[in-house]
Amino acid sequence: MKLTIINGPNLNLLGRREPGIYGTSTFTDFLDDLRRRNPDIEISYFQSNSEGALVDRLQQDGFDPEITGIVLNPGAYSHYSIAIADAIAAIPAPVVEVHISNIFAREEFRHHSVVSPVAKGCIAGLGLEGYALAINYLRSL
Amino acid sequence: MKLTIINGPNLNLLGRREPGIYGTSTFTDFLDDLRRRNPDIEISYFQSNSEGALVDRLQQDGFDPEITGIVLNPGAYSHYSIAIADAIAAIPAPVVEVHISNIFAREEFRHHSVVSPVAKGCIAGLGLEGYALAINYLRSL
Amino acid sequence: MKLTIINGPNLNLLGRREPGIYGTSTFTDFLDDLRRRNPDIEISYFQSNSEGALVDRLQQDGFDPEITGIVLNPGAYSHYSIAIADAIAAIPAPVVEVHISNIFAREEFRHHSVVSPVAKGCIAGLGLEGYALAINYLRSL
Amino acid sequence: MKLTIINGPNLNLLGRREPGIYGTSTFTDFLDDLRRRNPDIEISYFQSNSEGALVDRLQQDGFDPEITGIVLNPGAYSHYSIAIADAIAAIPAPVVEVHISNIFAREEFRHHSVVSPVAKGCIAGLGLEGYALAINYLRSL
Amino acid sequence: MKLTIINGPNLNLLGRREPGIYGTSTFTDFLDDLRRRNPDIEISYFQSNSEGALVDRLQQDGFDPEITGIVLNPGAYSHYSIAIADAIAAIPAPVVEVHISNIFAREEFRHHSVVSPVAKGCIAGLGLEGYALAINYLRSL
Amino acid sequence: MKLTIINGPNLNLLGRREPGIYGTSTFTDFLDDLRRRNPDIEISYFQSNSEGALVDRLQQDGFDPEITGIVLNPGAYSHYSIAIADAIAAIPAPVVEVHISNIFAREEFRHHSVVSPVAKGCIAGLGLEGYALAINYLRSL
Amino acid sequence: MKLTIINGPNLNLLGRREPGIYGTSTFTDFLDDLRRRNPDIEISYFQSNSEGALVDRLQQDGFDPEITGIVLNPGAYSHYSIAIADAIAAIPAPVVEVHISNIFAREEFRHHSVVSPVAKGCIAGLGLEGYALAINYLRSL
Amino acid sequence: MKLTIINGPNLNLLGRREPGIYGTSTFTDFLDDLRRRNPDIEISYFQSNSEGALVDRLQQDGFDPEITGIVLNPGAYSHYSIAIADAIAAIPAPVVEVHISNIFAREEFRHHSVVSPVAKGCIAGLGLEGYALAINYLRSL
Amino acid sequence: MKLTIINGPNLNLLGRREPGIYGTSTFTDFLDDLRRRNPDIEISYFQSNSEGALVDRLQQDGFDPEITGIVLNPGAYSHYSIAIADAIAAIPAPVVEVHISNIFAREEFRHHSVVSPVAKGCIAGLGLEGYALAINYLRSL
Amino acid sequence: MKLTIINGPNLNLLGRREPGIYGTSTFTDFLDDLRRRNPDIEISYFQSNSEGALVDRLQQDGFDPEITGIVLNPGAYSHYSIAIADAIAAIPAPVVEVHISNIFAREEFRHHSVVSPVAKGCIAGLGLEGYALAINYLRSL
Amino acid sequence: MKLTIINGPNLNLLGRREPGIYGTSTFTDFLDDLRRRNPDIEISYFQSNSEGALVDRLQQDGFDPEITGIVLNPGAYSHYSIAIADAIAAIPAPVVEVHISNIFAREEFRHHSVVSPVAKGCIAGLGLEGYALAINYLRSL
Amino acid sequence: MKLTIINGPNLNLLGRREPGIYGTSTFTDFLDDLRRRNPDIEISYFQSNSEGALVDRLQQDGFDPEITGIVLNPGAYSHYSIAIADAIAAIPAPVVEVHISNIFAREEFRHHSVVSPVAKGCIAGLGLEGYALAINYLRSL
Repeated sequence: MKLTIINGPNLNLLGRREPGIYGTSTFTDFLDDLRRRNPDIEISYFQSNSEGALVDRLQQDGFDPEITGIVLNPGAYSHYSIAIADAIAAIPAPVVEVHISNIFAREEFRHHSVVSPVAKGCIAGLGLEGYALAINYLRSL
Repeated sequence: MKLTIINGPNLNLLGRREPGIYGTSTFTDFLDDLRRRNPDIEISYFQSNSEGALVDRLQQDGFDPEITGIVLNPGAYSHYSIAIADAIAAIPAPVVEVHISNIFAREEFRHHSVVSPVAKGCIAGLGLEGYALAINYLRSL
Repeated sequence: MKLTIINGPNLNLLGRREPGIYGTSTFTDFLDDLRRRNPDIEISYFQSNSEGALVDRLQQDGFDPEITGIVLNPGAYSHYSIAIADAIAAIPAPVVEVHISNIFAREEFRHHSVVSPVAKGCIAGLGLEGYALAINYLRSL
Repeated sequence: MKLTIINGPNLNLLGRREPGIYGTSTFTDFLDDLRRRNPDIEISYFQSNSEGALVDRLQQDGFDPEITGIVLNPGAYSHYSIAIADAIAAIPAPVVEVHISNIFAREEFRHHSVVSPVAKGCIAGLGLEGYALAINYLRSL
Repeated sequence: MKLTIINGPNLNLLGRREPGIYGTSTFTDFLDDLRRRNPDIEISYFQSNSEGALVDRLQQDGFDPEITGIVLNPGAYSHYSIAIADAIAAIPAPVVEVHISNIFAREEFRHHSVVSPVAKGCIAGLGLEGYALAINYLRSL
Repeated sequence: MKLTIINGPNLNLLGRREPGIYGTSTFTDFLDDLRRRNPDIEISYFQSNSEGALVDRLQQDGFDPEITGIVLNPGAYSHYSIAIADAIAAIPAPVVEVHISNIFAREEFRHHSVVSPVAKGCIAGLGLEGYALAINYLRSL
Repeated sequence: MKLTIINGPNLNLLGRREPGIYGTSTFTDFLDDLRRRNPDIEISYFQSNSEGALVDRLQQDGFDPEITGIVLNPGAYSHYSIAIADAIAAIPAPVVEVHISNIFAREEFRHHSVVSPVAKGCIAGLGLEGYALAINYLRSL
Repeated sequence: MKLTIINGPNLNLLGRREPGIYGTSTFTDFLDDLRRRNPDIEISYFQSNSEGALVDRLQQDGFDPEITGIVLNPGAYSHYSIAIADAIAAIPAPVVEVHISNIFAREEFRHHSVVSPVAKGCIAGLGLEGYALAINYLRSL
Repeated sequence: MKLTIINGPNLNLLGRREPGIYGTSTFTDFLDDLRRRNPDIEISYFQSNSEGALVDRLQQDGFDPEITGIVLNPGAYSHYSIAIADAIAAIPAPVVEVHISNIFAREEFRHHSVVSPVAKGCIAGLGLEGYALAINYLRSL
Repeated sequence: MKLTIINGPNLNLLGRREPGIYGTSTFTDFLDDLRRRNPDIEISYFQSNSEGALVDRLQQDGFDPEITGIVLNPGAYSHYSIAIADAIAAIPAPVVEVHISNIFAREEFRHHSVVSPVAKGCIAGLGLEGYALAINYLRSL
Repeated sequence: MKLTIINGPNLNLLGRREPGIYGTSTFTDFLDDLRRRNPDIEISYFQSNSEGALVDRLQQDGFDPEITGIVLNPGAYSHYSIAIADAIAAIPAPVVEVHISNIFAREEFRHHSVVSPVAKGCIAGLGLEGYALAINYLRSL
Repeated sequence: MKLTIINGPNLNLLGRREPGIYGTSTFTDFLDDLRRRNPDIEISYFQSNSEGALVDRLQQDGFDPEITGIVLNPGAYSHYSIAIADAIAAIPAPVVEVHISNIFAREEFRHHSVVSPVAKGCIAGLGLEGYALAINYLRSL
């Protein structure tokens, strides 16, 4: 079974950026942990600050019949990237949207995600564990 | 370990109501399954169509030191019950909000939850499996 | 043929409350009159100030195959009770929404009913006679 | 007893236009039926696609002391014709607004009628039967 | 002279809930103090988390000719319960709205009360002392 | 010197319609008076309930080089007829907008006129005398 | 092959009205040119300032099985005539909406057309050539 | 007969300020002309840039029984000074609001005047002549 | 103990202005009464129609260590004077906002006070007695 | 004569993505067809999912004096890319905006294009034929 | 070279007011420093809490041909004083708007300045140094 | 001392693009001048039309301990790039936002910057000199 985790802008800073909100462990550490906990799943990882690169990767993996699903944290693009939303709507692979922090408890402009209506579902506020739950969900399909 | 699942209005109709959106299995069947999958957790269940009764139960279980957390699907009250939101903010137990359907892909008025900002986090659109994930999360705390 | 009339909050005060808007006869008097004018119909009546109790009754009668339809005056809940609207959408029985006064000629917040989109139709501003017309309609089905 | 039924724009297409919403019988057929069901009432009928012509007719019949009331389906003009609303406010005859479809369950812009606040009352969503109920109401005055 | 104090949802948690906003003394303690300071007034007290129960009590006491007035803290219902507002408008007894905290200095959605327009007046932000001032006002009538 | 006064919908009812707002004298009486007070001006008069007819007349008189200006009371069309506004913008003759009542002291939807930005100026709330002042202004050009 | 071009209010002024926006050639001149460029198509032409007359003509030609399509410039009515939009939705003939100027670069209120959602498509800002392109499109069907 | 003309902020700059909008003659010159044209009226004049001073003067002259009326150009305060509006509502003297330019053809924020609803009426866009027309109106009372 | 009462614009007209809303007694009469009822408190009084003068006085008394608190009725400035709000936020003395009428039951624009969020609390709708209650509150500190 | 066609995000998926909306032929097939139909025009083609790359290409071709014009389908970027709009405003070459589907008949957020005000004009809803019409237009310049 | 610095309401409290936002040094100290750093410039200083006085001073200095420019911190008036904005638009001297704090990072109502559109430019968030930069800018003209 | 200047989309066109707004000198010329005026500062320069590339560079330089600060003109991205705003919030280096033109005097959508709340401060409307002032500010830290 193959999955892809795609992280949007500034998520490469995890562990360095606003630790009060995002915690102090880096995503690489967490990814190792995730792979250990899911030895039967081949987890690809992609991060980019560029909206276009994220769309490119969603298209590429989303049409790949070997990939069961995509876990996507669109970061700031959640709130305005209709291009990413259109890519999700266009691809057959199911996409689960994950947010590390509770976006509904932060600034007003973070309460709305243009990605959510086209994602399969959304997990927010449950920290890095949210990625693990999303993988559990994709496994249960 | 003890948890409570609280379901809001019309969720007693699961299996009878709009099966296109909510599926055809009843919550009781699913609850049996959940308990089987989590034999080490004592899961209480409460459903009510009354906002006041939901607030009462949140207060009662939320201050009970034996209860690790609450999984709450506020149903329609998600969108306007500040009373339920205030109860969640008042209690020490962590509350995970669950929605069976992807509320962000439905009518405009379902896109906003007054409960989300005070919940620990939110899982939406992943079907009944959302409850199981919420329990996984509470277990991971 | 069986019908149910359900009245929401403060409608038990009819005849005592703002007679300039709602008139001076009580609903009980009017109900006697309605039953006399429709001797072939068994008309049940339920009034509650509680949103949850209204949802309970809508569920109970709405799934009762002997009940042809429901005449509902949701009172103040018309304007915000998504829980009642969800119940109407969930039940197979047709619901006709009735308002005694012309809600469109009153305060701004009374112009919008969250119930109307899921009701079969709406009669407003025609006084208590609105209930009689709703029954005529259900008879015509 | 004399009444007038006034239909606004595109209602001459009844039976040809969007039968899923408006049904397949023409208004002429229905009018014959209405007159048969109300042999004691002289029912005039007027339809126009022109806002000005509708205002003219409302003024003419609205000041005619022999006319007990007017049943008006303003069609699309419901949503913006302040001119028709002003005419209704200016005339002494009571006007009952009728909509064949449930305008509250259609596009957002159809949820608001500028005519409703000045009409005696409104019947929506009960099909052609709505006209019959409006006549019943005017008879009951 | 008889008065009723009615407290809405979550106000039973006073002393346990967000002490930074609501203080640490319980309402029962404060009530004893209030009764001591107003020995000539018979003060009834009612608290409920249920909107319907609050409407029921407002109706019951509001039409009781022996009751001079009602001091009401609608809690979260202040912001959306048109049912409570309708009850206040329907009863002859004067109602003074009280809020312990300064609702205008808190979240945006707490700035607006649907109850205020139908209450006699409003006291906000003056702590528990607000109840005492409301009683002083009712005494001055 | 030649001028035209154009009156929009329902202004033919002056003296019959809402005398509390519009007074009891008819426009014909007032027109006689206006002509007597301005013996050197040839005043044409046109009233229609039809938006199209008003546009036709504005075009016809607005391009007539013998006509010094137009006094226009667009009535209800003030608030939405972009067609009339476009006609005014298209013609060389200056147009003075007149409202008998103070539209800013009436319903919210009457506060905005789409005609005002393209008219030379606007006189509102000064009763029928507003027409006389508009003529004075056109004379002063 | 037969087509109809329908022009809305003030478009009869083309060549006289705001030449900076609309150019200096009259529509009649342009129509001659269009017919010369499309000798195999019988092009009917209709212009009116009256909303009702435009609806009448849309209904008449829209149900005429010999007419392949309609090119419509609704002028100012684009922005508020739901009656015209309803007529377009009701007729089987395809309607292409044309605007001579770039309405999106003009006043805010011209950015929105209630006609566009029910038209087949829209061409704006390409001058009179827009009519020619619309005919090309209808020919390509 | 006595009248007062009150000018708000920056109107002392007339003739120096934005001559494209306000013209090049000073208000003093114009005032001389006004007095010559109305020899039977004693016209007082007051200008201030201070909201408080304008309120003071409105109160003083508005309760003076010898003053028939007030012509007020509130300048920028038109758009936000509820204090001035309250003063106008409080005084018995009629107030006619005058604007030299067509405020409805300028920036969005100038389209709304909080003074208009409480003034007797409003004259806008007719240049300095607007003051003369306002005086004519007050004379006609 | 020393307190200051500060009244904003038009409150000098009390007794003369809209007696239906504000009553017929003057503030001077009431002030005498207040001083009699609070013989142990030295009550200063200041009224001005000028926003700047109110800010000046708030600064002066707000930093005076001998003054226990300020009772402020900002009148119309409540709704827009951020300058007054900033002064209140800057001074150490507690400020209680008082409104004689129930501002929430009046025009829409009076429902919002920019002063409330920075005041200690607010008393509205309880007539002149509101000032007395505010003094009671400051005494209780 | 040289032209450039620029396609925005996800338009590389044409033929694979939502065929109900976008059809089943790929853009490459269509491009061959376009070049065959316009043998005298050298048509360059560029597609990118990246906003920055689209801006780069618009700048490059827009200042190229040999290029007569640009046909641009900005895809999802239509609705928020002010960067693309600024590029269009900055370059001398005329840009015609094309949308394959009728964006005005789709989701609310697709009704508004930030690109339209700075484009020469817009063609929407006429399918792939819209590109051909845009080329016809540029040829007609 | 002569310049004027004008400070609006509550800026006289600098050093005493909310030091977390505004710092602890007084403006007088800073002014001495500014004058030392710019020995060749004659810097006048004016502060007032009164909107009218600020308008007066802007007019006086703004037309003074010896004054090169004005540095203005309008304080709270930034957000609503159209009177001050009108004065700036009316005077020939360039005005640079300065805010000590980053108004865009504070309360929502501080994000918008009615003064900015008519000022030459704006400097915000750079502390007292903002005044020095504004002077540097005026020197560079 | 080292600083970085980062310019967003279309700013590479300076001198070619809308010279009425942006002037005719190129940024390269200006940069030479800036370096001459600040010989002690090592000024890096980066321009990109790509949002992702700008985020990349902000991250890289923002965590570089040798860089004292960043001067950023986000161009069009100012108005919607939450990704850039998040990057600024994540990095320790202070960022001063600069706009060449007065964005508050241009189109409505340019009045709001999502970057401003997280920048140290903002300088707008002072032309290219704004960059020099920003450098002065960073030097003063």
